[in-house]
Order: sequence, then C-alpha cells, then structure tokens
Amino acid sequence: MTVLEAGVPTSEGLMPSPSDKFSFGLWTVGWPGVDPFGVATRPALDVVEAVERLAALGAYGLTLHDDDLFAFGSSDAERRRMIDRLTAALSACGLVVPMVTTNLFTQPVFKDGGFTSNDRGVRRFALRKVLRNIDLATELGAHTFVMWGGREGSEYDCAKDVQAALARYREALDMLCQYVIDQGSELRFAIEPKPNEPRGDILLPTVGHALAFIETLAHPEMVGVNPETGHEQMAGLNFVHGIAQALYSGKLFHIDLNGQRGIKFDQDLVFGHGDLANAFALVDLLEHGGPGGGPAYDGPRHFDYKPSRTEDADGVWASAAANMRMYLLLRQRAAAFRADPAVQAAMAAAKVSELREPTLAAGETYADLLADPSAYEQFDTGAYFGGKGCGFVALNQLAIEHLMGAR
Amino acid sequence: MTVLEAGVPTSEGLMPSPSDKFSFGLWTVGWPGVDPFGVATRPALDVVEAVERLAALGAYGLTLHDDDLFAFGSSDAERRRMIDRLTAALSACGLVVPMVTTNLFTQPVFKDGGFTSNDRGVRRFALRKVLRNIDLATELGAHTFVMWGGREGSEYDCAKDVQAALARYREALDMLCQYVIDQGSELRFAIEPKPNEPRGDILLPTVGHALAFIETLAHPEMVGVNPETGHEQMAGLNFVHGIAQALYSGKLFHIDLNGQRGIKFDQDLVFGHGDLANAFALVDLLEHGGPGGGPAYDGPRHFDYKPSRTEDADGVWASAAANMRMYLLLRQRAAAFRADPAVQAAMAAAKVSELREPTLAAGETYADLLADPSAYEQFDTGAYFGGKGCGFVALNQLAIEHLMGAR
Amino acid sequence: MTVLEAGVPTSEGLMPSPSDKFSFGLWTVGWPGVDPFGVATRPALDVVEAVERLAALGAYGLTLHDDDLFAFGSSDAERRRMIDRLTAALSACGLVVPMVTTNLFTQPVFKDGGFTSNDRGVRRFALRKVLRNIDLATELGAHTFVMWGGREGSEYDCAKDVQAALARYREALDMLCQYVIDQGSELRFAIEPKPNEPRGDILLPTVGHALAFIETLAHPEMVGVNPETGHEQMAGLNFVHGIAQALYSGKLFHIDLNGQRGIKFDQDLVFGHGDLANAFALVDLLEHGGPGGGPAYDGPRHFDYKPSRTEDADGVWASAAANMRMYLLLRQRAAAFRADPAVQAAMAAAKVSELREPTLAAGETYADLLADPSAYEQFDTGAYFGGKGCGFVALNQLAIEHLMGAR
Amino acid sequence: MTVLEAGVPTSEGLMPSPSDKFSFGLWTVGWPGVDPFGVATRPALDVVEAVERLAALGAYGLTLHDDDLFAFGSSDAERRRMIDRLTAALSACGLVVPMVTTNLFTQPVFKDGGFTSNDRGVRRFALRKVLRNIDLATELGAHTFVMWGGREGSEYDCAKDVQAALARYREALDMLCQYVIDQGSELRFAIEPKPNEPRGDILLPTVGHALAFIETLAHPEMVGVNPETGHEQMAGLNFVHGIAQALYSGKLFHIDLNGQRGIKFDQDLVFGHGDLANAFALVDLLEHGGPGGGPAYDGPRHFDYKPSRTEDADGVWASAAANMRMYLLLRQRAAAFRADPAVQAAMAAAKVSELREPTLAAGETYADLLADPSAYEQFDTGAYFGGKGCGFVALNQLAIEHLMGAR
Repeated sequence: MTVLEAGVPTSEGLMPSPSDKFSFGLWTVGWPGVDPFGVATRPALDVVEAVERLAALGAYGLTLHDDDLFAFGSSDAERRRMIDRLTAALSACGLVVPMVTTNLFTQPVFKDGGFTSNDRGVRRFALRKVLRNIDLATELGAHTFVMWGGREGSEYDCAKDVQAALARYREALDMLCQYVIDQGSELRFAIEPKPNEPRGDILLPTVGHALAFIETLAHPEMVGVNPETGHEQMAGLNFVHGIAQALYSGKLFHIDLNGQRGIKFDQDLVFGHGDLANAFALVDLLEHGGPGGGPAYDGPRHFDYKPSRTEDADGVWASAAANMRMYLLLRQRAAAFRADPAVQAAMAAAKVSELREPTLAAGETYADLLADPSAYEQFDTGAYFGGKGCGFVALNQLAIEHLMGAR
Repeated sequence: MTVLEAGVPTSEGLMPSPSDKFSFGLWTVGWPGVDPFGVATRPALDVVEAVERLAALGAYGLTLHDDDLFAFGSSDAERRRMIDRLTAALSACGLVVPMVTTNLFTQPVFKDGGFTSNDRGVRRFALRKVLRNIDLATELGAHTFVMWGGREGSEYDCAKDVQAALARYREALDMLCQYVIDQGSELRFAIEPKPNEPRGDILLPTVGHALAFIETLAHPEMVGVNPETGHEQMAGLNFVHGIAQALYSGKLFHIDLNGQRGIKFDQDLVFGHGDLANAFALVDLLEHGGPGGGPAYDGPRHFDYKPSRTEDADGVWASAAANMRMYLLLRQRAAAFRADPAVQAAMAAAKVSELREPTLAAGETYADLLADPSAYEQFDTGAYFGGKGCGFVALNQLAIEHLMGAR
Repeated sequence: MTVLEAGVPTSEGLMPSPSDKFSFGLWTVGWPGVDPFGVATRPALDVVEAVERLAALGAYGLTLHDDDLFAFGSSDAERRRMIDRLTAALSACGLVVPMVTTNLFTQPVFKDGGFTSNDRGVRRFALRKVLRNIDLATELGAHTFVMWGGREGSEYDCAKDVQAALARYREALDMLCQYVIDQGSELRFAIEPKPNEPRGDILLPTVGHALAFIETLAHPEMVGVNPETGHEQMAGLNFVHGIAQALYSGKLFHIDLNGQRGIKFDQDLVFGHGDLANAFALVDLLEHGGPGGGPAYDGPRHFDYKPSRTEDADGVWASAAANMRMYLLLRQRAAAFRADPAVQAAMAAAKVSELREPTLAAGETYADLLADPSAYEQFDTGAYFGGKGCGFVALNQLAIEHLMGAR
Repeated sequence: MTVLEAGVPTSEGLMPSPSDKFSFGLWTVGWPGVDPFGVATRPALDVVEAVERLAALGAYGLTLHDDDLFAFGSSDAERRRMIDRLTAALSACGLVVPMVTTNLFTQPVFKDGGFTSNDRGVRRFALRKVLRNIDLATELGAHTFVMWGGREGSEYDCAKDVQAALARYREALDMLCQYVIDQGSELRFAIEPKPNEPRGDILLPTVGHALAFIETLAHPEMVGVNPETGHEQMAGLNFVHGIAQALYSGKLFHIDLNGQRGIKFDQDLVFGHGDLANAFALVDLLEHGGPGGGPAYDGPRHFDYKPSRTEDADGVWASAAANMRMYLLLRQRAAAFRADPAVQAAMAAAKVSELREPTLAAGETYADLLADPSAYEQFDTGAYFGGKGCGFVALNQLAIEHLMGAR
C-alpha cells in the first residue's frame, strides 16, 4: 500500500470521474516549490506526465498559462512542439482544456504590470502576448479565458494613478472582447481578483471590485469572474458570500478552489484543508443554491492549489487526489444535510426560505405599504426583545454535525 | 491655555471654515463610550450643544440617524420637538445637514437585519422606518441619504440565503428610489460598505461589492457609495484604491473619514491617527485627482469617528478639532508635494502620467497593433532585467518627506 | 421536539457529565446581547437559573467575575445576599466554581486600565478590588484566579509608557501572590492574553507575551496562562501552537474554548463553530498530547463564548449544549484518529515521533558531533531534492477525514 | 541631479555617519527580485560592491548569512576566497560586521526546518552548519548571531509535535551556547520571531513567544531577541509594544527595521514606508525610552528590507539611503517632540510619567493598602464618569504634528 492509497481510500460515490468536471492547473501539480525563501525542492514536471497522471486520478480537465507549457521567449517551433505534445496527450487520455490563462507576471518586463504598467510599451507588449494566447485558447477548445492581473497594482500610493489604471484595464478588455467577437469565438473572459501579493495592493482586489469593474466595459456580458477561495480569504472575506454575489450578478464563469488558513500570504492548500466549515457551505451553495435546490454552477471545479513544498512526487499526486476527494466528501455531506428532516425543520424555524419571499406583496407599492398599519403602527417591535429568537446557532450546529458525519 | 488650545494651535490656512465643508455625525461627538466591554464614560450630549460647539470649531455640517435625535419609538410630538430644536440651532449657528442616515441596527427588532432580515415583517417595518426618515432628510434639506446596513449579514453560512438577501436589498432600494423620484426630490442614496462587526460577515462588505450591487438596481444613477476609511482597512484594503475606483465609476457620493490601525475591530479614530501615509495619499487624491489636477470630489468631508472612551468633554472637542486640523495639514502637504519640481521630475521618471495615455493610438485597432512589430517582435523585453527601473521608491520617499514637512 | 433537541441529539459518549469538567462563565449564558451597535436583545439572566440550567445540561462548573454576580458598588449586604443565593444553588445542583476572575474593565474608573492605569489612584483601587475578589474566590473554593487585563493597553503610542506599565503589572502580581501565600491558599493565577479590543493594543497580547512576563515575577510558579481560542486567532496565530508552548512551559493552568472566524472583532462563537480543523487538533492535543499519548491537560474545559445576539433563551441553552457536544464529538474523532493503523503508518512516514528523539545521542557533545562525518561531510543533502518527501499532505487528509467521520 | 539625489537630499543632521550605527544585510541590497510569482529582475550584486556602496552612503555595518557570501555546498577554497574578498573590502571601506546569521531555510534539505525538522539527520546537519557559521561570525568579529527559524514550523497541525519541536529547539540552543562559552567568545544569540511565511505557522511567532522560550534555556543570559518591524505587524501587533517588552526583559540584543503595510505577506519595505506613526514612536522609544530619557538601545540600527522588485540598481541604492534618512528624520522629530513644552504639558495632563511611580508607597504592604480607606472606601469612582479625561487624543495630535513637522 502506498502513501497515496493510504491517504485517499476510495469508496462508493467518492471516486472522481470526468462527469464531476474536476480540472487542475498545469502550474499546480507542476509547482517545483520555489518560494520567497527557498529554491525548488522538486524537478520540473513534464506536461505529458501531468496529463496522464491527472487522467488516471479521474480529472477531466487541464488548464494552463502560455508560459507553463513553453518558456517565455520560445521560438515558434518550440512553442508548436510543446502544443503538439500537449494535444497528443490530451487526446490519448481523454482530457480537455476548459480554460486557458495568460502570464503577465513572471518576467521582468511585467514588474509594474501588464495592462496597467506605467510604461506604455509594456502595455502594448502585454496586449500582443494575450492576443496570441487567445488564439491558443481557441485552438485548444477552451471556453474560458482567465485573467489574473497579479502585477496590476502598486506598493506606493503616489506611484500609480488608479483611475487611469482602471481606464487602461478597461481599454485592454474592450479590445480583447472585440477581437473575440470578430473571431466568431464563444470564448468568455473571467477576471480573478486578489487583494495583494505579489504587489502590495492589487487592482480589483475582491470579487466585488471585479464585478463592479465589469459593468464599465463595452461588452460586460462577455466578462465574468473567477474567484479563488484563498484570495477572498486573504482579505478576511467570506468566500461563500462572494460566490453568492457573483451568482446573483450572473457572473460566476469559473471558480478556483483551494485552502487558506486566514489572513496571510497566499497558501494554496488543498481544497478543504483551510476553512473547512466554509468549504462545506460553498459546496452546498454550488450544488444546492440554484433554483429549486439544484446546482447553482455547472462549470469546472478547478483546483488552483500548490502541493506543499515539503512533498515529493508521491505527495504531489496524493495532494491532487485529496482535492477531488474533499469535494466529493463535502458533496455527500451537503446532500445529506439538505435531506435531513431535522435540518429542514431548523431552517424553517430560522425562516431561511422566507427571505425568498418579496417584501412587498405582488403589485404592492410604497403607497400601499404606507397605508398598511400592520407594517408599522401596529407592528410589535417589543416582541423581539427576549423573544423571536432566530434559531441560527442550533441550525449551524446541525450543519457542523453533518459536516462531521455525526448525523 | 486649555488642553484643546495646546493640542490644536491655529495658524494660516489651518483654521477650519465652512467653505472646507467639514461635517460630523451627531453620533460621533455624542458617543458616550459604551463598548463591548464597558459602560458609558460620558453623559449624553444634547443636540443643541453639539450644533453650537461644532459651529464654533468651524464645521459646516451636522449629520444624523433618526434615532440619534429622538429615541426609537418616540411619539410624534417628541419627535417634532427634537426636530424643531435641531432646526432652530442649525439656523442660529449657520450649520447645514448635508446628509441623513437611518438606524436599522440598534434595536432588537433588527437583530437579523432590516432590508434583509429573514423575517418578512421586519423587512416591511424597516422600509416604513426608512420612508419616514427620507421625509425627514427632505425636510432638513439633505442631499444625500446614507445607508449603512450594519446588521444585513450573518454569522452562520447556512442561516442566510445571500442571493435572496441581495434580491431583497435590491427590492428595498428600488422602492426607495421610486419614492424619491415621485417626491420630485434630488436626494441621492449612498451605500456604506463594511466587512464585519457587528455581524460576523456583512453583505456588501467593500466598496467594490457595493458598486457592483448598485449596477443591478432599477435606478443605478441615484445610488452611489459612502466609503469609510476604517471599514476598507478592516479588510486590509487600500482606502485610496477604493476611493479611486469609486471615482472611476462616478459613484463617490459621500465619504467618511476616520482612522484605523490595521485589521481589527472598528476603531473610528481621528482622521490621520491611523495609517498616516494613506491619509496623505487620500487627501492628495481628493484635492488633486480630478481632471487637470483639480479636486476629484467636492462634497462634504465627513468625519465618522469616535472620541476615545478615555476622554471627557474637553477631549471630545479636542478630538473633533483634531479631525479638521489633520485634513487641513494634509491638504497643505499635498499641495506642496504637487508643486515641488523634484516631485514632478520623480513622477516623470516613474512614468506616472504616462498611464493616462491610451495604450492604443487614436484610431488604432487590434489589427494595427498586431501589425506593429515594435510592439512585440522587436520589443526588447530583456531591457527590463537590470534596467528600466521604475523609480517608485525614490518617489515614495519624496512623498513621505513632504508628509513630514521635511522639504 | 424543541429546537434544542433537534440541534443537539444525544447518543452514546456524547452526553456531557461532570467528569468531563465542562464549565461556563456566568457572563456567557448571561450575555444580554449588547454590542457596539446594538442594545440588549435579551433580559438579564438570574444566577440561580444559570446554575440550574447548566447543571441540567451536564456541566460541572460555573465561573464568574465579581461584577457578574453583584453590581459594581453593591452594598455589603447585597453582595452577601447574592453570594448566598449562588452558593445555595451550587449546592442544590452539585455544581462547583473552579475559577473566579475579576472585572477591571467595565466601569469608567478603569477606562485607562486597572493595574496599569496612568492614574495611580486607579491602580490602588484596582488592587483593592482584586484583593476582595480573591477572598471571594477562596470562599467559593476556586482553584484558579483568571486575570484578563482587557483595559491594560493603549490606543496611542505616546500615551503609555509600556516598560513602566509592565513594571506596574509585575508589582500588582507580586503583591497578589504574596497575599495568597500568606493566606495559605492554593489559589493559582492565570493570565488571559488578548491582542486588542476594547483597547487598540492590549498589553500581553498573546500567550507568548504572557509566558515571558510571568518569568519576570517574584513567584512565577504561581502564575500561568488562560489562553482563549479566539484571542490567539485574532492575531492570526495558531491556537494549537500556543497551547503547545504553554504546555511546554508547564503553564497551561486553565483554558477558554470558543470559536472565531478569522482576524476581526472578538466573536466568541460556540467552540468548533470557528476554525473546525484547528479545534480538532486542539482536542487531540489536550486529550493525547501528554506523555505516552495520554491527556496533556486535566483542568476544566471552560467555554468563554457568547450566545449570538440573534437568539432568545431557547437559543442560549441550545448554544450552551452545543459547546459541550462539539467537544465530545471532537474527542471521539480524535480517539479514532489516534487508533487508526493507517494514521499510525502515515505518522511514521512523516517522522512525527522522530522529533521526540534528541538530536544528539545520549552523552554526545558538540565535539562528538563535529567529529561525525555522517552528520555533515557525508550527509546527502541532494537527496532532499525530488525525494525524501515528508508525506504531510496525505497525513493531513487522513486527519480531515477522521474529523469528517469519513473513515 | 540623479534620481538618488532628488529622492534623498542631505541637510544638517540628516547625513548618515558610522556613529549612527546603520547596518544592512547583504541579502537586502543584494535581493535580485525573485518572488513567489516572478523571476529575478536584477543581476546578482557582488559583495565588494555592496560594501563599497554602503560605506559611501554612510553605513557602518554589513551583516550576512553564510549562503549570501558563498553558495551552499561551496568548497573550502571557494568559501575562503569569498571571505577574504569580504574582509578586504571591509577593511578598505571601514565597515564592520556586527552581526552574522545563518541560513537554514533556502535549501531542499531544510524543507521541514533545521533545528526542528522531523528528520533527525537534518537536525544534525543543521547544527553542524551553524557551528561552522559561528566560527565565521567569530572570525568576522560579530557580536551577535541572529537565528531566524523561518522553516521551523508547519502547515498541518497533525504533522508537527510542537512540544517536541520546542524541546529540540532548546537542545540546539543549549549546545550552541555551550560551544560559544567554551570558545571564550562574547558572541550572543538573538532569536528573530515571525508568525508565518514561508511556513503556514512558524514556531516562536512573536517577540513574546521568543522571550518566553529563552527562559527555558540552559543559558538564557546569552540569548535575546532580534525583532523585525514587519514580522510583528504581520500578526497585527504593535511593534513598539513588542520592543518595549523586550527592553523590559533586558533582551533587545538586535533590531531589524523595515516597513510593512498591514497583515499580509512580508513586504520588507523601507523603514518608515509602512506604518509611519508607529515608526515615529519606535524611534522615540529607542532614543528616549531609557532611564532619564536617554537611549534605550545602543546597538546597530539594522535594516532588513528589500528594494522593491520594480527598481534597478539606482533604485536599490536610493532605497538603501532612504532607510537611513527616514531614521534620521524621525530621530529629529522625536527630539523636537520631547523638547516641546506643550508636549510636556500634555504628557503631564495625561499622567504618562505617573505610571513610573510604584502603586504601593515605599515599604507599603498589602496590609497597609487594605487599611487605607482613601484607596477604596473613600475613593470616588464616580468622578471618572464625565470627568477625569485622560487627554490622550490631544497628546497624540501633538505627536502627529511633530511627526509632520507642523510645530
């Protein structure tokens, strides 16, 4: 029995399959372990091995930055050779590439950003790099093009005109949308927010800021968000709330799942190895937050995590498997939670679904409301002192017990 | 010489006057010092004294929640009596009420929120309370109606359907906008975000989330934001970036200035007594971030702070004066910063204004860009290694030196 | 079926009993819901009811501040009357008072602290108040006297001489220790750290700072720590690490269990309703972190939480029960985790217990080490690149699966 | 005029000189800009150039890790060659090496730590590496040996026995102290705490934890702390409070100055470019917090910062100069603050120095205190409601105005 087998036993309903739509970034399982205070602890991972191993574990998709597949500055021939190796492996293993993203952050040229660098030459170069990568996304059949603007930001308030930066960001998105429209492609863009790291402050730091920015674009319908668990939690925000607002806005185009233990550097742990209770609520939302209790999201369950630097290759694949198993376990727990009559009773007591009822009756206007004494003049506000308890703690206890498999 | 005089000497350009548009919440100077672990350390402040003292210090405006002026549940007569006392004092002292806000958070009835309480009866009551308060705002001549939804949120993920909550929030705003339109009023709404406290997670936690939500409303043009320094900083976000995005979106309808020392409970310190460098950048943005270097915002400079619980009445008024003096000092420093040729040279070296130049030339399309070899094929990315330094640290050092009065 | 029954079903091994040593603060179940933005939502709870209800739920102990039992400034007669009511109820219900603590934070007189107020008269008054309360602790048979110095701190760096404050803190502790020694009492002191709130910065902000301070006292052996889950997590620190260091130092005299969701205001949620994975590791440490895998701590499991302000009396008691049930569930899970052969194999692979082996062999000196070529000259550091994986992720996955009842 | 000159003008009292004891890590000015999302933006810096440039700027000292000077695994000859180049340059330029530190974090072998790796072979190797580096410290004439245990920690609670880890840490320190004693060296150790990054949680996360740990050593008198501004602020702690407690414990053996903007990744900005008000208070404490208002610390003012990745070589040296200039500017401001009669009056009103008076009179016992009715029975606690204001805000306003050069 290997460590992998020990750590990730299989059982009914917990075997990942392509229908679960689990995908991984090539840069995730391929992370060699370089961090701010340490060199690589693992050798580079070949893309073909990545595809084969992920397929064997039950994943359905691989995602990538251009620079993950071929080094920055590669010749056309080298670029083509690597693309061909990838597509051959995908084909052999039955994996797809549902999402492609671009790297505007690793190289020195992007030290002050890509689309919003103070240096106009850099901005033009960035646009060209992304245009080329959109062609690759189309070639690989991706549906979503993610944009994480990790270097779009600043350390010093006086050194970045943020209003101008947002205008340049918009200019870039507008041009790229036009390009996609003109190609007749169905590709959609998804902005990935992050509050900081590597820049002191990153533009579009949260799901909210990205959603607001999208509304200023020429083609807002083509652009959504790709929220990442840890990125929202680095700002102390509730990831489930952020996802819910993205769903409310019709903008959850893609999702990055991982684990984070509080406000600190970006940890990229295995999904569920961070805030477990919030991960449970997230899976419950994705699987049961849609109309009528159905799924609220049907896209890839994409893991954007890093196998801890302490691990060797066995640990890398054990960690990849752990992400999928965590999702499947949480999905089981959420289904049982929704099905439990005690939960349903506690939810009713807590009036959770009463919030779906409009506050005004059908056709009721403010004039009608003003004329309704039961709404104000006769409303017994005093009953809420010492009474009218919400029952939230008991409901949460039930949720935790389901999460713990204790009911 | 009193402590107040010692602490707040006056000199040219540092005497607040109504033209500076400084305003204070009645609940700020009136805060008696109740906190989660302590009872009041100061007696209640009468509204007339508040008006008189603020006028004497050079403020131009007072703002208030309904419940600041008359206790929740007051009779119509008591309510009227207090409104009349307020208007008489305003009139006598030359103060205005530029903003009114409503309290949907103090009373037990709002323990699970107002517009988004799970309890529909509470939601209807909340709407009625706000409608009545809008009438008061109109009567007092306010231009802005702030909505801080401090109880709109949750502690437990399973107990709040966030998508439904946002739909109810929207329903409330849509009805209120319609009411204002039908009144023929010019009143505008401003949403005040906050990430948490008193709820574990508050809906619309940051400027970004509020801006995004506004775009889903029936009358987005009537609704903007009222960002508060400390609230953004409680999420570890850069307040200046948030204000810049609000300006970019044309939504900075009002602003709450105060001080916060990092990610912790809401401190509501004097403006500038928190992150001083960010306060400097903020004043610089407000005063010089508009077109052509002019003001980016011309509304009230509103202080939403709390005089520390350690202080008595003298300390209350010293702290009120300190807010205005901080703003004026920072305004002086920002003007000198902008005027300094060394700063202008360092800004040019850092290409700060180059970011205002569109990335594409006038009329240039992506096809043109793709055909421009200087943008990509001939672009020397290698020059950014070991060269093409941004000069940001030197520029920031100049900013800090101006802030310190050292140039 | 009541909400309480629904939320907290009972089953084998999950019924709290006095042998579990669960205790609650009188101020916890008695919290009426006053917070920085809201008035009480519940009436006061009588101490007799508190004792009766806690006993019925299976608790063994009640703890209290002096001011919880009788109002600040009570007459001797009123004080006596309340003490007698308490002792009668304890006696009738079989509850004990294992810990007493003192309130140096609620009243205006303590607005700048008790032992470290800048005002010497306040410091003397604080000492007298505590001396009197030590007598009460002795009368009630408490073993531990907790000191949470919530007002010992500052908002402004210039206004508090921290070195002097620590000297005064020490002076206070030294005097109190001498008093206890002279009384012939076995009472021990436990300092409760907290980083901030209500003060901007509190002295002795973490377990580490308190442990360090204790070593400067005249009687360090009489003073330990009382760490609280949420307080360490408010500084982003790992509570399990803090408890482990307290155990390493022999100073875990008492413990406050509750839940916190990240770096924000002090939430005081039910134990396990915050960072669930860390709560699991904590219970595992307390129950299995001692010599030979036995308990590392045998004192009270004290819950210092607040029933959410949204709850009425039913919710208060449901939340009290939930704390105990969470502990018992986690204890079950930890026992199964330790007993699982797959876990034991993964722990061995991760060399967890190898860390208990001294680095030097018995009797080995640095000279011996320097003479050992296998330690350095022949040591193969290269083997740690691409190999020698630690197996930590697989082990953690097993831990999470046990926590989730999935093995 | 170069950018450097523009950014860092010189004037009286603001020219760094060796008597100011400014020192820099070789790894600071030598940082090539590798971060978690980017490759180097600058070439390697030769040690001789580092010495020459720092000397020219007015520094007095250079500090280093072994691996900064010669690559890990260097031959003895290469090691000697680099040491000789360093000592020749030091000698030529008049710089000293006041501190040496060791690198137990960069290489794969240390992926789970050095002194506390679960792998005993790694622990033995780490000890050997440090012993050799102590010899180098002695050769270079260093007084302090700093130990930052950046890899001593964990990501997963179940994978590290923290009690055992602390025992191994102690074992290591005890052996190293004995080695130094036997060498007859005066070298002292200084532990540098950090809460997280690169590990999820680092052992000895704050100044407090390190101070507490030191007391468990065989030779506590030989070991102190080396606090770093940003590291404490990453835990949301007040750096000035931490330094004050280190001084209180007699353990401020060395200090690392830099800038950090809140709870996030380790930014290592220029000193004063983070929390400016706290930096002012820190310099005030170091320069005026000793007995009689004199210096509280006379060791090196060591800058452990990183020149932003956006900068080229000019920016590197501008940033190095900026650190020293910030310290000198703040020192000037602090001196003026202390000398201002208005400040002295406000400090007296705030009773700041009253805290230096013991709470008990000379010779007073608790019995005397109990017998003093003025301390309790006659003490007017009511006077603190609505009166007895502390005057802290006015005092802080004066501090900020001095910081801003506005008085």
